[in-house]
Amino acid sequence: MTLFNSRNSIHRSPLGAVADGTRVHFKITLPRDMQCSASYLLVQHPDNRIECLDMFWCGMNGNDYEWWECHFTPQKTGLYFYHFELRTSRGRSVLKKDLGGEARAGAREDWQLTVYDGAYKTPDWLAGGILYQIFPDRFASSGKAKENVPADRTLHENWLDQPDWKPNAQGIVTNSDFFGGDLKGIEEKLDYLASLGVTCIYLNPIFESHSNHRYDTANYEKIDPLLGDEEDFRSLCAAAKERNIHVLLDGVFNHTGSDSIYFNREGRYGDGGAYRSQSSPYYPWYSFRSWPNDYECWWNFITLPNVREENPAYDNYINGEDGIIRHWLEAGASGWRLDVADELPDGFIDRLNRAAKAQDENAMVLGEVWEDASNKTAYGVHRRYLLGGQLDSVMNYPFRDAILGFLLGEHASLIMDRIETIVENYPPQVLRILMNHIGTHDTERALTVLGGEPAGSRGREWQSAHTLSPEQRETGLERIRLAALLQFMLPGVPCIYYGDEAGMEGYRDPFNRACYPWGHEDEDLIAWYRYLGLLRQEHGDILKDGGLRSVYAHDNVLSFERYVETEGGEDALFVAVNRSMENAVIPGLHLDNAEFIFGAPYPNPAGGDFKLPPFGFTLLRIHREKTENGES
Amino acid sequence: MTLFNSRNSIHRSPLGAVADGTRVHFKITLPRDMQCSASYLLVQHPDNRIECLDMFWCGMNGNDYEWWECHFTPQKTGLYFYHFELRTSRGRSVLKKDLGGEARAGAREDWQLTVYDGAYKTPDWLAGGILYQIFPDRFASSGKAKENVPADRTLHENWLDQPDWKPNAQGIVTNSDFFGGDLKGIEEKLDYLASLGVTCIYLNPIFESHSNHRYDTANYEKIDPLLGDEEDFRSLCAAAKERNIHVLLDGVFNHTGSDSIYFNREGRYGDGGAYRSQSSPYYPWYSFRSWPNDYECWWNFITLPNVREENPAYDNYINGEDGIIRHWLEAGASGWRLDVADELPDGFIDRLNRAAKAQDENAMVLGEVWEDASNKTAYGVHRRYLLGGQLDSVMNYPFRDAILGFLLGEHASLIMDRIETIVENYPPQVLRILMNHIGTHDTERALTVLGGEPAGSRGREWQSAHTLSPEQRETGLERIRLAALLQFMLPGVPCIYYGDEAGMEGYRDPFNRACYPWGHEDEDLIAWYRYLGLLRQEHGDILKDGGLRSVYAHDNVLSFERYVETEGGEDALFVAVNRSMENAVIPGLHLDNAEFIFGAPYPNPAGGDFKLPPFGFTLLRIHREKTENGES
Repeated sequence: MTLFNSRNSIHRSPLGAVADGTRVHFKITLPRDMQCSASYLLVQHPDNRIECLDMFWCGMNGNDYEWWECHFTPQKTGLYFYHFELRTSRGRSVLKKDLGGEARAGAREDWQLTVYDGAYKTPDWLAGGILYQIFPDRFASSGKAKENVPADRTLHENWLDQPDWKPNAQGIVTNSDFFGGDLKGIEEKLDYLASLGVTCIYLNPIFESHSNHRYDTANYEKIDPLLGDEEDFRSLCAAAKERNIHVLLDGVFNHTGSDSIYFNREGRYGDGGAYRSQSSPYYPWYSFRSWPNDYECWWNFITLPNVREENPAYDNYINGEDGIIRHWLEAGASGWRLDVADELPDGFIDRLNRAAKAQDENAMVLGEVWEDASNKTAYGVHRRYLLGGQLDSVMNYPFRDAILGFLLGEHASLIMDRIETIVENYPPQVLRILMNHIGTHDTERALTVLGGEPAGSRGREWQSAHTLSPEQRETGLERIRLAALLQFMLPGVPCIYYGDEAGMEGYRDPFNRACYPWGHEDEDLIAWYRYLGLLRQEHGDILKDGGLRSVYAHDNVLSFERYVETEGGEDALFVAVNRSMENAVIPGLHLDNAEFIFGAPYPNPAGGDFKLPPFGFTLLRIHREKTENGES
Repeated sequence: MTLFNSRNSIHRSPLGAVADGTRVHFKITLPRDMQCSASYLLVQHPDNRIECLDMFWCGMNGNDYEWWECHFTPQKTGLYFYHFELRTSRGRSVLKKDLGGEARAGAREDWQLTVYDGAYKTPDWLAGGILYQIFPDRFASSGKAKENVPADRTLHENWLDQPDWKPNAQGIVTNSDFFGGDLKGIEEKLDYLASLGVTCIYLNPIFESHSNHRYDTANYEKIDPLLGDEEDFRSLCAAAKERNIHVLLDGVFNHTGSDSIYFNREGRYGDGGAYRSQSSPYYPWYSFRSWPNDYECWWNFITLPNVREENPAYDNYINGEDGIIRHWLEAGASGWRLDVADELPDGFIDRLNRAAKAQDENAMVLGEVWEDASNKTAYGVHRRYLLGGQLDSVMNYPFRDAILGFLLGEHASLIMDRIETIVENYPPQVLRILMNHIGTHDTERALTVLGGEPAGSRGREWQSAHTLSPEQRETGLERIRLAALLQFMLPGVPCIYYGDEAGMEGYRDPFNRACYPWGHEDEDLIAWYRYLGLLRQEHGDILKDGGLRSVYAHDNVLSFERYVETEGGEDALFVAVNRSMENAVIPGLHLDNAEFIFGAPYPNPAGGDFKLPPFGFTLLRIHREKTENGES
């Protein structure tokens, strides 16, 4: 008998994160022979103060267990941590959190209760949709931009070349090779993206800068000439809008390039810039320890001088009424992805969010955070990213790790716990638009990881020469199908990293940033993604906001339901995945009113336990009527 | 590579709990390719305030790792919790605690740093010794007390009868059957105890009371007549002292009996008592909700009215200059074991400790606490039991659970972690005199548990009828030998529950409280305990204060070293135990200068990996010289 499980609404209601002012009900069950004479809910408030609430006996749970309950109403947004204390005949005893959110004596972790600002709303338009991430130099080339190649840049002649990876004579990988993908090229491929069901494109940086990744911004006000110009951008957004596709920009506000109109170390931009003149208007943006050569920069890359985000001039330049944030939203973007959000001060993110919403109340602010963003700390203080007024969503690396980890053999029960932890900790309005990817420009490509031979500590030389063997690739393809299925079915919004759906392989940067293989796509895999996209639309009533319920997570099988309450009961999607090369079984699974959608048939012809073939899966839609006693 | 391990002096020095004002060194190692630009030690102080300390780069650790370090000097006693935060190229990352005290990304638990009062000293006399727990009615009878049986008590006629366990007509087990063990009987057996190496007897309650367990005190000033009188007690203590044996008393200060001169519900003590007169001097000791019949009592047993320990009259009666604590120390006791310490207010324990030390600076105060006593909480506040001025020692139930759990098949690595957690969290002056038992009057007997058929949820009827089968008993005996070996070799002081050494079985209360089987002992097992006692004496230089170092804890094998620094290097005792019925191996174990003491031979005749036979063990003494670079 579980004494308390934070993920069961019998024990905690409502479940998950709650808005401030919500009355939360806590109910534990205790064995009678524990002889509990008093029990307490201990709540650590966001200011670390600990509150002790009496719990009250509220009836028997069968013959051998009792119920105790209490209510707690958090008034302030923030993170609350709680556990239970009991007075028993043995003295005091403590219930803390173990795997699966369950109480266990001897566990050491408090449960987390996230309390968000109920007055804050995240944008609705991404919910139920599909994201697609594009590294702009590498997705599609219209040929137009190639006519304007700046003199100091070299273009690969062959679109399917491997990106340059060898360091130069100074031992530096300069990231200065370009392929000539451009905005017009993306616009030309919008119908392809629409065919995948994509509803939002996330573009890596597109502003003028002098490397192919463009994270070293030279001018926030200008599209990089190789990509096109502002008209091209407006045209892309307008054409996308016609297809109900939004566009998210990448905002790099922790640093600029040294080779920029703001800093101008390299002298490209005349006599101005902070490096060249202490009377430059940009001088106060930067932190010089000793002007001009000693300044703070990102990880000591002298090409990436840090900006002082709290400097009023910089802040106004970015977040002001005529600032960068508002300008590009006005030009057609629907939101911003914030690079290294961990490095941005709270006040800056607050103001950026306000600027975006002032321009467009539906604008989205999405952060790069690699871990559980609900409880990240800086200097021992929890960041308030998700509590309202900062980030509407984040890149969901924890789901990536869970999905890939599951397919590569980690314990299914641990995987489900990691997924449920995010679901429990994140505000529902964030969860529904969470960016669920299985790879980005900062990771090895999913197919390469799933093929079974990750780079590990091997260097770029090995990575450049290595591709999956035919057998590895076959296994990888089986797995990436299942990965995408999970990605499309879990709470949040799936994000396809350009080319993953076409069967692209690639180790770490820059091998994960090769060009989209037009004409050489894996059409079977694309068809798979298209079908998943259709399923997302067809079952959007459940997938958009439905709850998550673990069904069976053991050995090689992960299975869960997404569900929504309806007037007459509940509608649910049942998903089961077998990650292994052998048959797998879910013992004693009996689902009534299950409509078969996709995968291995249900009920299995043989009857009895439910069987999944190697790399098999099953999708069912279930309709449950409320029974007379109100349970569905 | 472990980035930090709180149990490795490279990473944290000094190890374990520290005295207030100790400068503690923290050192973490980070992979270079993590590109850490700053790191911090986050310390949560006892008042929950969080302090952020900068760490500093302090050199390379090979080619691929760096060292970062800082110092922290806790000024106040209390519990500090800490973790690390890193700024890396990916944003912020957090190092928290995983199994074995090791850092792992994604772990959720802070490390604990216990800071105790360096001015407080626990008594020295128990260190290196052996404890023996006696349930007084059941250990030995001189026959003398039997001449004074109070009219309302019944004595079993046969010493080897099973204790009464059937409820009476009202459904209550009255614990009113006696066997007539007495203080004189214990005195007569002192030579037997001395032959086991015992240096301290812990007596369950001996004061007048009207049940056989005597936790319902009737008169703190008087020895129960069936046990003898104060002269008998003084004589026992004096005779024990001649054999270098101390005596610990059981202090029950959370409640009295209702059938007592203080409360006198049953009217045995005339017209006085709180129940009979609101002008009784004892009236303010108790909490009447509605006099006389509605009062607070222990777990609603009306026979056990709670006392208000903070009431000045009660406090003075117990802790005053002429109080109970000092009186019985003066009469010959060496200290007190406090029943249900969790229920005693801090102030009461403080004053009790002061009273004891005022009478005898070497008096011991030992608490009944079932879990890790260093971080027990009450109402969300950590109790300060072990920090100085409260408890000198506690009953070490965590070691009991670990030792029995190991022998019954729990993962050896988890077991070692639980042992090392106590060693890390407890002040060393507590650790050296920790009461390491494998069973008490409140648990099933160790042999019964280890025989493999614990009672579980089965009732007293089954327990009364059941004993181990010959095969189970044989297995149980193999295991209890190993349990005792571990108990005698781990940090702290082993405590033998009377009769365990003689092969007694017994399920839960009252079956664990049968009479010592004089004339029917398992002499082989007694010989084993005697030999362990000799080993403790012989290697007392190491066992008294030596550190604990895990050597190998996997599968069926637990092995560790106890070690002390010497002028020329280090002396160590190596202990290895195989809990299984099959051969076990410690791979690649090579110990130089190892003197064989006991068990399976070393080096094994076959050479290579070190082998342990079924239920086998090995004890070695090792002398290590310091090498030229200072390492031993």
